[in-house]
Amino acid sequence: MNHYKLDILRKLSVEYRELNGAHVETVRSPPSAVEFAQMVHVSRPVIIGGFKTDALALWSDEYLKTRMGDSKISVAVTPNGLADAITLGPDGTQYFVEPYETKMTIRELLEDLHTSRSDGRRDVLYLQSQNGNMFRNTSLTNDMTEDPTEFGPLRKDISREISWASEALGKPPDAVNVWIGDGRSVTSIHNDPYENIYTVIRGTKHFTLFPPTEGWCMKERSYPHARYTRLTSHSPLELTPTPCGTPLVRWSSIQDPTDQAQLPPEASPLQITLHPGDTLYLPAGWWHYVRQSGITIALNWWYDVEVRGMNWVWLSFLRCSGDDVPEGNDEDSSE
Amino acid sequence: MNHYKLDILRKLSVEYRELNGAHVETVRSPPSAVEFAQMVHVSRPVIIGGFKTDALALWSDEYLKTRMGDSKISVAVTPNGLADAITLGPDGTQYFVEPYETKMTIRELLEDLHTSRSDGRRDVLYLQSQNGNMFRNTSLTNDMTEDPTEFGPLRKDISREISWASEALGKPPDAVNVWIGDGRSVTSIHNDPYENIYTVIRGTKHFTLFPPTEGWCMKERSYPHARYTRLTSHSPLELTPTPCGTPLVRWSSIQDPTDQAQLPPEASPLQITLHPGDTLYLPAGWWHYVRQSGITIALNWWYDVEVRGMNWVWLSFLRCSGDDVPEGNDEDSSE
Repeated sequence: MNHYKLDILRKLSVEYRELNGAHVETVRSPPSAVEFAQMVHVSRPVIIGGFKTDALALWSDEYLKTRMGDSKISVAVTPNGLADAITLGPDGTQYFVEPYETKMTIRELLEDLHTSRSDGRRDVLYLQSQNGNMFRNTSLTNDMTEDPTEFGPLRKDISREISWASEALGKPPDAVNVWIGDGRSVTSIHNDPYENIYTVIRGTKHFTLFPPTEGWCMKERSYPHARYTRLTSHSPLELTPTPCGTPLVRWSSIQDPTDQAQLPPEASPLQITLHPGDTLYLPAGWWHYVRQSGITIALNWWYDVEVRGMNWVWLSFLRCSGDDVPEGNDEDSSE
Repeated sequence: MNHYKLDILRKLSVEYRELNGAHVETVRSPPSAVEFAQMVHVSRPVIIGGFKTDALALWSDEYLKTRMGDSKISVAVTPNGLADAITLGPDGTQYFVEPYETKMTIRELLEDLHTSRSDGRRDVLYLQSQNGNMFRNTSLTNDMTEDPTEFGPLRKDISREISWASEALGKPPDAVNVWIGDGRSVTSIHNDPYENIYTVIRGTKHFTLFPPTEGWCMKERSYPHARYTRLTSHSPLELTPTPCGTPLVRWSSIQDPTDQAQLPPEASPLQITLHPGDTLYLPAGWWHYVRQSGITIALNWWYDVEVRGMNWVWLSFLRCSGDDVPEGNDEDSSE
């Protein structure tokens, strides 16, 4: 990225911040379809109260264990709680590392999360399969055979789509996901091409948000890919680089965006804390870093971003997706 | 504007065009509020059929003359049909020229438009007072004394607001205007910070449209201000420069954007023709040049553009409003 483009991005982010401030709107009850369409057009985060899902009342440990029984679910395992994140490898290189994935019952997952609080050395489990693990778009065609899920027994507790969101966006969600973890898991800063409705069922979620205009502050770099592996089911996790030839992964080089020292001075994070029953509208393209307290269960509905008009052109431009920045070439002014 | 910024704008406009094509959507009947909110989010022009206003059925010459009687209305007068346009002055300088304004009855206006077809040398009249000449936002507070209009007797024939637009945008229109002219009047290329609903009552309107991403193709320059004046009511119009000290007017230097030779090769005009009963949703920030055939009557509703979020930041960026380009410094690549 040349300095002229960086200057332009810097100015745009400052103008955006001056115009919009640091306010996060809160509404007491879910919006109508028209009100949600206005929120999407403004594309600022909104905390929504009063969004009801049966899961909120029903999903105790006992309920989950009883309903799911011996069914196995896919769980991400890392030594440090960093799945899909930049991590230093044993060779001194920074990698984009995907978690080891294993299968277990929800009983095993919950028991691990409860006991791990007193045992800091254990591997960190996070249910974050996130590819429509509750519902995928194909399920909306009523062809259930096309839509395998590990959570069939829990489906009746949540709705496949959110009426006001689907009506406002003119389409059903692309994916509905459940997330189960604890305070040791952290989601590294990234953004998604989805309008996201995110609701907390249990525990507390701490979001650090940046508007798309601050994409340049995220200092994306290109990293080689690796994955946690283990030799046997009892061996320790090892960071294993993926064979050469695998495409590099473009990812933010900011490890902890709650630490202002890691950011350019123009960056203006918004801090949001969600408790059970709170719902966040997280607009497409917004950068988010997520921490959590206690055992957490959350649900989210992903709706494809509108690509017509200027939306997609802007988001691509702000993400500088056409620019390859070599690692280490920091262009920030935070020195 | 430096060449790096111009390069960026050029690329953005090409990407926008590649993604969106040259299609103009047509719908047979007015949208619901949610559908219109989606249109506004996409921000592409849409031709809307079936939008009914009593004016469409009622506004014959006889009806207009009878209802308006001897009330005087403000009419723009130019020697050439170019009100609010760039015109060469007698001193060889190009000016942004505003029309001479006079008052007459609607009978006098209509009679002039009918007879002028056979008399090319007459001054050109255009009713284009355009500052909410039918309704202004203050009228929506029900304080009619705050809202003078020259068209009181015609107000009952049109609605102050369009229900689906007001609901989608969460506010009433800022201004409702009537426009009356003929084929000799041309509206020079410009854009407005309004979501515009424009409906044709009589005659034919020819719009040439460019997306906001092609603002750089409009080659805006800064022009001294002038106005048409006349010494007595029978004297010929004279182009009179406004005294020094008046701020320069930033305006497109493209005289005829239907002539591709005047535009950079990247410019991709959309041509739209509207007949009586046709309605155009013209999104905020879209550049438009308007010609007309026959005696034309049109109505439009202007809703303030959404300034929250990224919308305003983008529109300002694309209009290069911070860049002062001296006249004659053409940076296009159309040579």
